[in-house]
Amino acid sequence: MLSKSIFAFAQDGTSPHIVDRITLTDGWEFLKDSLANPWEAWLTDQTNPLTKVSLPHCFNAMDACDPDVPYYQGPGWYRTHVQINNPFPNGRTLLHFEGAGQESKVYVGLELAGEHIGGYDEFVLDITELAAKHTDYKRGVPLAVMCTNAHNLDRIPSQMSDFTLYGGLYRNVHVVYVPEASIAHVKVETDIKEGGRSCSVNIVPNGYFPADTVPKYSGKIEIFGPDNELLHRSDSLALTKEDAKQLGNPLIVHNVKLWSPDSPNLYRCRVTLQLGAGTQVVEERFGCRSFHFEEHGAFFLNGKKCFLRGTHRHEDHAGYGAATPAAIIRKEMQLIKEMGANFIRLAHYQQSKLVLDLCDELGLIVWEEVPWCRAGAGSEKMQQMVLDKLRIMIEQHGNHPSIVFWGLGNEDDWPGEYPSINKEEIRVLMQRAHELAHKLDPTRLTSYRRCDFARDIPDVYSPSIWAGWYGGSYTDYQKSLETQNKKQKHMLHIEWGADSHAGRHAEKVPLVEIPKDETTAETGMAFKMTGGSPRMSKDGDWSETYACDLFDWHLKVQEILPWFAGSAQWIFKDFTTPLRPENPVPRINQKGVAARDLTLKESYYVFQSYWARKPMVHIYGHTWAVRWGKPDEEKTIKVYSNCVEVELFVNGRSAGKKKRNSQDFPAAGLRWQVALKPGKNEVRAVGSTGQVEDQISFNYETESWGAPHHLRIIPAISFSGNVPQHFAIAEVLDAAGKICHDARNRLTFSVSGAARLVDNLGTPWGSRVVEAANGRAVVHLADVDNISGFAVSVNSAGLSGATKLNRAIT
Amino acid sequence: MLSKSIFAFAQDGTSPHIVDRITLTDGWEFLKDSLANPWEAWLTDQTNPLTKVSLPHCFNAMDACDPDVPYYQGPGWYRTHVQINNPFPNGRTLLHFEGAGQESKVYVGLELAGEHIGGYDEFVLDITELAAKHTDYKRGVPLAVMCTNAHNLDRIPSQMSDFTLYGGLYRNVHVVYVPEASIAHVKVETDIKEGGRSCSVNIVPNGYFPADTVPKYSGKIEIFGPDNELLHRSDSLALTKEDAKQLGNPLIVHNVKLWSPDSPNLYRCRVTLQLGAGTQVVEERFGCRSFHFEEHGAFFLNGKKCFLRGTHRHEDHAGYGAATPAAIIRKEMQLIKEMGANFIRLAHYQQSKLVLDLCDELGLIVWEEVPWCRAGAGSEKMQQMVLDKLRIMIEQHGNHPSIVFWGLGNEDDWPGEYPSINKEEIRVLMQRAHELAHKLDPTRLTSYRRCDFARDIPDVYSPSIWAGWYGGSYTDYQKSLETQNKKQKHMLHIEWGADSHAGRHAEKVPLVEIPKDETTAETGMAFKMTGGSPRMSKDGDWSETYACDLFDWHLKVQEILPWFAGSAQWIFKDFTTPLRPENPVPRINQKGVAARDLTLKESYYVFQSYWARKPMVHIYGHTWAVRWGKPDEEKTIKVYSNCVEVELFVNGRSAGKKKRNSQDFPAAGLRWQVALKPGKNEVRAVGSTGQVEDQISFNYETESWGAPHHLRIIPAISFSGNVPQHFAIAEVLDAAGKICHDARNRLTFSVSGAARLVDNLGTPWGSRVVEAANGRAVVHLADVDNISGFAVSVNSAGLSGATKLNRAIT
Repeated sequence: MLSKSIFAFAQDGTSPHIVDRITLTDGWEFLKDSLANPWEAWLTDQTNPLTKVSLPHCFNAMDACDPDVPYYQGPGWYRTHVQINNPFPNGRTLLHFEGAGQESKVYVGLELAGEHIGGYDEFVLDITELAAKHTDYKRGVPLAVMCTNAHNLDRIPSQMSDFTLYGGLYRNVHVVYVPEASIAHVKVETDIKEGGRSCSVNIVPNGYFPADTVPKYSGKIEIFGPDNELLHRSDSLALTKEDAKQLGNPLIVHNVKLWSPDSPNLYRCRVTLQLGAGTQVVEERFGCRSFHFEEHGAFFLNGKKCFLRGTHRHEDHAGYGAATPAAIIRKEMQLIKEMGANFIRLAHYQQSKLVLDLCDELGLIVWEEVPWCRAGAGSEKMQQMVLDKLRIMIEQHGNHPSIVFWGLGNEDDWPGEYPSINKEEIRVLMQRAHELAHKLDPTRLTSYRRCDFARDIPDVYSPSIWAGWYGGSYTDYQKSLETQNKKQKHMLHIEWGADSHAGRHAEKVPLVEIPKDETTAETGMAFKMTGGSPRMSKDGDWSETYACDLFDWHLKVQEILPWFAGSAQWIFKDFTTPLRPENPVPRINQKGVAARDLTLKESYYVFQSYWARKPMVHIYGHTWAVRWGKPDEEKTIKVYSNCVEVELFVNGRSAGKKKRNSQDFPAAGLRWQVALKPGKNEVRAVGSTGQVEDQISFNYETESWGAPHHLRIIPAISFSGNVPQHFAIAEVLDAAGKICHDARNRLTFSVSGAARLVDNLGTPWGSRVVEAANGRAVVHLADVDNISGFAVSVNSAGLSGATKLNRAIT
Repeated sequence: MLSKSIFAFAQDGTSPHIVDRITLTDGWEFLKDSLANPWEAWLTDQTNPLTKVSLPHCFNAMDACDPDVPYYQGPGWYRTHVQINNPFPNGRTLLHFEGAGQESKVYVGLELAGEHIGGYDEFVLDITELAAKHTDYKRGVPLAVMCTNAHNLDRIPSQMSDFTLYGGLYRNVHVVYVPEASIAHVKVETDIKEGGRSCSVNIVPNGYFPADTVPKYSGKIEIFGPDNELLHRSDSLALTKEDAKQLGNPLIVHNVKLWSPDSPNLYRCRVTLQLGAGTQVVEERFGCRSFHFEEHGAFFLNGKKCFLRGTHRHEDHAGYGAATPAAIIRKEMQLIKEMGANFIRLAHYQQSKLVLDLCDELGLIVWEEVPWCRAGAGSEKMQQMVLDKLRIMIEQHGNHPSIVFWGLGNEDDWPGEYPSINKEEIRVLMQRAHELAHKLDPTRLTSYRRCDFARDIPDVYSPSIWAGWYGGSYTDYQKSLETQNKKQKHMLHIEWGADSHAGRHAEKVPLVEIPKDETTAETGMAFKMTGGSPRMSKDGDWSETYACDLFDWHLKVQEILPWFAGSAQWIFKDFTTPLRPENPVPRINQKGVAARDLTLKESYYVFQSYWARKPMVHIYGHTWAVRWGKPDEEKTIKVYSNCVEVELFVNGRSAGKKKRNSQDFPAAGLRWQVALKPGKNEVRAVGSTGQVEDQISFNYETESWGAPHHLRIIPAISFSGNVPQHFAIAEVLDAAGKICHDARNRLTFSVSGAARLVDNLGTPWGSRVVEAANGRAVVHLADVDNISGFAVSVNSAGLSGATKLNRAIT
């Protein structure tokens, strides 16, 4: 009767498997308030000004990077009416949450259907009986969900985490219909044989039998290959309530097409359950691959050395918070792939099913992690939560071939953890987690980042090395790697990089004098902007220029260490964190190679030049509108490219060809010293491979300027088709009115009248408080009524501010 | 050793009595956040940006009338360090809270010292043992308090209440030292004898004996008269743990000076406790008076008829919320007295000790009320809370001679109460409360306002009569009173009046056509601005002009009904309510005769003209800058005065003398029809008694204007001494640029640059969203930096807005 199959997942005790579902996107209402219970949620009056929302919805979408006020942590209430039409006789109706932050209570009518703690795993509630009480409601069954991200010391990740603990129904919610007995979960176990020529596949379907008696059923299991060809069909099906290890003899797939970053081949199994009155069909994808680590050495996939070129991802996007739309997730994962990455650590928690599916499809090896983050030994409840969430992660995501590492946690040695740092207890908990992961999944590796006193416990460990950012210089990088590599059996270098304020460039990066013998690890409160030893994170200029050099150096070093397994740069995209209100974009961790709205920074292309195979060429400085220097000074032009040879043209004339040499820092030797003319200059680079090219233009300023003295604000307009886009440009000027092209002053925008700032987006062009980049900043405006007019202002401590009136400028 | 006496009060079980105390005002830090527990409260990092505050502190001081967002309801955390130096050997250290909204948890270090529910009663915690654990802390004992006003259906008053459920430590907090055994509470019972010539006084001191054994003690009791003369001394003292009814024979005070509004004579008893190593002295004030009600008739105080001329008060003030400073409370109570009131209902909860003390001192008869407000039968827990809070109110405030009525509640017949309106259960609870009040205090009357199906239960009942506001016309008032008076034994008319937008005046009030047979009661959702029958509250102009007429009519009627006991106008001062976002000042109940900052409205003087004895004269329209009409039209000038005769002068010439006649509506006949000249006019009125006089000037506009078309904004400045006060005036103009003197458009102010709006004050001159009054509105500005400059804007739906740039105008 029903045959549309969806996907499988498991959950504590009740592990239903989905066959037909309605995704509840529209028709929700939301209220951010401390309602006592669902009775209040159904009050409709002006004191409860519920807003219409659609799911996914994150109630911190706009406040997580408010420059003035920390983000809201407390309850938010959702309500809707759901039409329930279960097609199965005696069928069960389930509510399936793909994840909700950070704790949830779900009510059908006024009754509690269930509750859940944890913001990053899926959960399912069987609401059959409760929903049946409301069949007379014309609008459907009343459903109310309370999500809260209020502080809770028993919950992971901890409040000390360097990211926002988002609240809300920020992943999909579905109504799911299944027969009276159904497939709850299909586990797929694979085992590579014959040196990679064949693979044994074991299909383990678990059942969900809510009634006392199990009805008569039949069924079949089919397996399809990457080209959709039927490889196997078995006409028997046995469901068990247990987490059965095996069902019959495993099937052998011959001439197997292995899964790898280059060839992410995916197989598919289809399990069909036949009951008297209904059919349930369930599909699961899987892949076949093997991997291993050499001691103190490299990582191997399918028997071949595979250098892990990785980055990180948070569930976070400008304007959406954790409720990032699927289209943006797809774009982001595609960009990561195109950067040349073959590896990603999903930090610091399980991410949505879509992300894992994309990793499978694109070929990104995954380190997925349980959110035991900066929580230490914590309370007994917290310890249990760590183990529970680890088990659930493995159950729910175990079929994804992309996952190789089960991350056990991050930085549980953080100063000031609750109730105190207890190294021994932390070791014990990590050991328990490590053993549990191996028990549930003997095929994968456990991993952990930064907790040196427990580095012997996980299969793979990453120490903290932030050469040139939180400690030391980037030139110390190789030495740090070599030193650290001896200290555990299997090392990856997870988390490295630098913050950069998109749009800020430097003719000469002001390098900080780093004390000798300074470690390159992030220790203590090194992430802060005050205190401690000199370091680039505190004392540097946060320019894209410096970040590119730092990345460039690291990538150059990583190229030539045969024993090195790989790394993951922190992080692909800027994201919100409550811990960093003083950053150039307040409360934004700016270590991304993309800004929070996915606008790529220059550093993205540094990675491409080392990692990507598709020919590319990129001249440094696309957003650098004005360069400066003496009239006769030769300036450096850097080009990031993976081509063998690049030719540069300055103002139409060739400046010569250069061959790429990864060990010739910076820019792998693709740099030219050229004379620029005052005023506009045009530069073009042409790569030898595939005739890829890039060009930029900029002004060259030869006159000098004085200290920042006052500000200027310029309301402006651009057109996107016929739609006017209002924005305002702020400039930092010296006493003579010249732009200070290296000014970094912290600016505050404000607007009055018939317009509003488009702010709290966490980008340099979407924040009402932001540091100038090269003496400028921009903010966008919306809801402009030009007949009424508006004024826009910029102010900065110590400088004279500016306000400009704007009327009828369309 | 210690002899400074403070005051007495009682509290569940532990009822300590205060002898020496430190009031904890300064050195507090506050965080509005959902901290998990006090461990988090003591974290100090940038993610917990605690702000320095002093007590009293209300964390909704500025958001309760935010036009855009409902007020915060959730937890707020306070922390401080307290030096504990108990002077008594084995003395006890108490924390005494005069009231905190709405639920509190108190921690010493990380340990819970106690918790309390309810926002309006005092509570005491004995922290002796917990404090002793922290004696080694140099900064003092760490103290953290969590207050929350999150929704709670088990708590009174209910969320449906028409006022803000404020949060915070909004009343005083003291550290109190007492000996190892101490006086906890001194109850004073008085009974008038010999027809008012003498009074029997019974002093009942209760003890606080935390130890198992009661140490040896001695003591004495003294009584002082109103002129501080010693009337009695007894050298024996017996404390009991029980709530003893009597201690020895009562003392008889002969030639007693009775307490009354005209002569608020206060007696004082002093109880001295002598222990081996310390002396505790406790003082209580009391008064001697008697009262009774005639059936369906008048109220008598000390045997004489006493017409109750009342008003109401909420704990609320612009910029402070519930944490109104003592000086403002004193000023407010003084103004109420000077208005001529002899009666006040403290709505809708127990108010601070200072308010009760001032009622005693000024001579204001009090209806104090337990906050059983719009909560109905509620849950079992809520029912118990009603009874608990009633008991505590009587225990804590029983000695105040001003209190005559124990209010049992308000409007517990409100539509939509939790879990449903159950009339029978509401009656049962009211009966229980009535009986409990009489058991604990047989001398006073119980009272209740609006719950018609239970009007037979309390001693005194007030029905709902809002003639001319929520229903009917004010001319229906007498008929409504007569109809209602038959329906219970003893009636007061509590809550009547009208909203008025301070500064708004009308040449001709647009009267609404009220349907015939419309009741004058507030029923259903009549308080709202939409739906239901035509009524002035929804369809009127909210002018001061109309409010004055309405008050005038009511007071005129009340003068001549010999059987009428009295009334209480709603309310002395404008206050915040979450239920009325659409009011001219959003979320402000504007029924005050004073604005929320105590600026008096015209209507204050209407009351004075009927009630006050001190001669006064007040010409209507002090804030009416422009009157309008035809050049040759005679205009009405109204004068409110209690003088026998008033003479009016218009532009220097006498317009004649008029005699006051309260039944000659309006203005008791003190009104003149006069010719005004275009432009400036000066009007002066001189009262016959004591040569009181008043004068105003205004412009007379004879040209007409068109429909509102656009806005003008004028930044302006005034000087308070040398200090510039910035403000901006908005004007509503027609298409030709003439001011629309009757415009009421809803305006929104905004500012950009180096200034900020002084808003969220809940006044017409302190709200960024506000309705124009006579075509104008004003907003104040602060933090102005004239070198940087700023812009100020005003906008309004349907009108063209205005923005003005302001630079260096000092």
